[in-house]
Amino acid sequence: MSDPTNAPDLKSWVGSANEAASDFPIQNLPFGRFRLPGESAWRIGVAIGDQVLDLRAAGLVDHADMNRLMQRAPNERRALRQAISEGLREGSAQRATFEAALLPQSAVQLGLPCEVGDYTDFYVGIHHATEVGRQFRPDNPLLPNYKWVPIGYHGRASTLQPSGTAFRRPMGQVKAPDSAQPVLAPSARLDIELELGVFIGRGNEQGEPVRIADAESHVFGITLFNDWSARDIQGWEYQPLGPFLSKNFASTVSPWMVTMEALEPFRQPFVRAEGEPDPLPYLDSQDNRERGAMNIQMEVVLQTAGMAREGHAGDVISRSNFARAAYWTVAQLVTHHTVNGCSLRAGDLFGTGTLSGPDKSQSGSLLELTTGGKSPITLSNGERRGFLEDGDTVILRACCEREGARRIGFGECRGTVLPSIQGDAQ
Amino acid sequence: MSDPTNAPDLKSWVGSANEAASDFPIQNLPFGRFRLPGESAWRIGVAIGDQVLDLRAAGLVDHADMNRLMQRAPNERRALRQAISEGLREGSAQRATFEAALLPQSAVQLGLPCEVGDYTDFYVGIHHATEVGRQFRPDNPLLPNYKWVPIGYHGRASTLQPSGTAFRRPMGQVKAPDSAQPVLAPSARLDIELELGVFIGRGNEQGEPVRIADAESHVFGITLFNDWSARDIQGWEYQPLGPFLSKNFASTVSPWMVTMEALEPFRQPFVRAEGEPDPLPYLDSQDNRERGAMNIQMEVVLQTAGMAREGHAGDVISRSNFARAAYWTVAQLVTHHTVNGCSLRAGDLFGTGTLSGPDKSQSGSLLELTTGGKSPITLSNGERRGFLEDGDTVILRACCEREGARRIGFGECRGTVLPSIQGDAQ
Repeated sequence: MSDPTNAPDLKSWVGSANEAASDFPIQNLPFGRFRLPGESAWRIGVAIGDQVLDLRAAGLVDHADMNRLMQRAPNERRALRQAISEGLREGSAQRATFEAALLPQSAVQLGLPCEVGDYTDFYVGIHHATEVGRQFRPDNPLLPNYKWVPIGYHGRASTLQPSGTAFRRPMGQVKAPDSAQPVLAPSARLDIELELGVFIGRGNEQGEPVRIADAESHVFGITLFNDWSARDIQGWEYQPLGPFLSKNFASTVSPWMVTMEALEPFRQPFVRAEGEPDPLPYLDSQDNRERGAMNIQMEVVLQTAGMAREGHAGDVISRSNFARAAYWTVAQLVTHHTVNGCSLRAGDLFGTGTLSGPDKSQSGSLLELTTGGKSPITLSNGERRGFLEDGDTVILRACCEREGARRIGFGECRGTVLPSIQGDAQ
Repeated sequence: MSDPTNAPDLKSWVGSANEAASDFPIQNLPFGRFRLPGESAWRIGVAIGDQVLDLRAAGLVDHADMNRLMQRAPNERRALRQAISEGLREGSAQRATFEAALLPQSAVQLGLPCEVGDYTDFYVGIHHATEVGRQFRPDNPLLPNYKWVPIGYHGRASTLQPSGTAFRRPMGQVKAPDSAQPVLAPSARLDIELELGVFIGRGNEQGEPVRIADAESHVFGITLFNDWSARDIQGWEYQPLGPFLSKNFASTVSPWMVTMEALEPFRQPFVRAEGEPDPLPYLDSQDNRERGAMNIQMEVVLQTAGMAREGHAGDVISRSNFARAAYWTVAQLVTHHTVNGCSLRAGDLFGTGTLSGPDKSQSGSLLELTTGGKSPITLSNGERRGFLEDGDTVILRACCEREGARRIGFGECRGTVLPSIQGDAQ
């Protein structure tokens, strides 16, 4: 841990940043976009405690284009982080300047952290892939390519939405096993997917693959990501070209990109279980083996409409961990995505895929948690859920903590299900 | 045919537009983006004969943002078309103004016709789906959902490239049937896909489906589209989430969006074969049945490096027709894509999917034309092709013609295969 901005004893003159429970101590400094009520343009901000630092107002950047900022080379990114850290540190000579550039997070609107050109969803959660495979293809749960290819597919950028946004339950074609033909109906198997979002910083030219040794230098930061899924629509539509309308009605992104620099203390060896094949050479490196994994703890909170009315914050229905769930590392995803010459651009988003742990209590989807709705869970107020009901709010949270490092958090990724527009759609 | 801009006897004072072989008579007036050597910004142009009309220079728009222009309501689009048509007509009083805004197409660079946010690839070619299905899944060629769901999946916007661009043969994981594990190698089964590109004009709000009666009002125009595909990479990677690196290394778009207004005279009833199921009500309308299809004739030209050296323009290796190839209409694609609340934005692109006719000579891919490479075709210079070789150039062309209407064309969609960077990638 050579980066002094991560030293665990650093404190900020922003008091709330020093509270043990804060997701945003001075060791974190995640980037996001915000605006004030009535503004249409986004500004670039960095979270510190319960405040947001306006980077342009603080004199740290001379524009408000997050995608442009994200393209910086790693040394320029580190220099900016260093400058932000120094200005926010206890005893900083720049305190007055920075203080004038602070706004309470509660007073601003947080948006998508940047403009997303292309969004790709991967499938790195091997426990998820195995369990879902079992339900969709009982004879053939984990396909032969899974342990060789970091499976991914393209998603929809137009329906990405910031945390705090509600969306309508999707309509779609569904077909009961015993029906001769499908019908158009509201999805009855609406689900969550607990994922992380990986945001690309520097892009690559079309035709120029990114080698694994360089891969992480193309990553800007990581968010929470909920890739809402309509399992009944998915089951009927997904062959042979993959999920489409079952996924593209809405995906929710948390506002703060936690940078690779902030995640540095939480890196760990990437170890596959005994008997797993070695990755092909283009996906393998000593650095990836020694520190490719990230110890990120995640949880899923479900708050029903009934709970919300009673002021109940919701139940934690699942807890998982990126390092335990993922069969592939972030570096491997970048390298695989570009090995054919595909270009990445600043602001592109990778979803990791659903990050379920090996135990059912670590499921990143209700499909797994309730075994396809057959074994509903009972919530603390007595309600039961197989899949999501109208009015349900799902909140994803994540943090990194370990002995000898300051805990950092990801904030929250929150979305609410509205009723479908059944009558109108037909 | 109530639109006077389509009258077959209209002539332009731009002489080349009146030549029978011109793709761009005054009845066409397709939109595209161009720039002069040394310029970085794109301008909005309309093709007329061998010239391009700079719409801003002609005083017809006051900006150079194609995506903004594409958002216009249908009546505003028709008004603009009317104004362009009148100014270019023989005897126009505005001839001097328009003449000053004309540039030879040969003197400008043509780009992608607009900025593409999201690109979706459909699979409307039922003959293609059946034949490809036979090769990938011999027991199960056409899956049960095909005749109900307009199958589609998301593609990659970052690697769309304008006609005339070369691209490297992709590297990727491939696995021989008798190998225990895959290897990273240049694709040996590089293919074309003869498609049309459908460009969205007006978007829709997230959560607000577009009904089929309104669907075409959201379409701006149609281009040629070659969705290059690496069949060996595809075969290994595509289960269970669909094609990814086998498709996203490059897709080529022709420069001119032929508008729905120009296509008006070439509409025809959309008729399904006896015994095919009726579409679900949300995908059905009288208008769609009466004029949902478009009689667009297409051809694929292959010019090898050897042919190019000898000044040989290439061989036509396939001829097809949109109306005969497609199981779904453009209106059905728009409505299906949004039925779940998915938002479309101006400039979004739909690929139709490969538009093969019922006969082998009408194949829109080499996969079909050569039966997976097993029966190579012999070209006029004696060369043989199973799949594409380095240096091959593929040119797609299309036109509409019928008795009583002026023929219109789509220009060309051209791309060239460069060698892979095998050594470098590993």
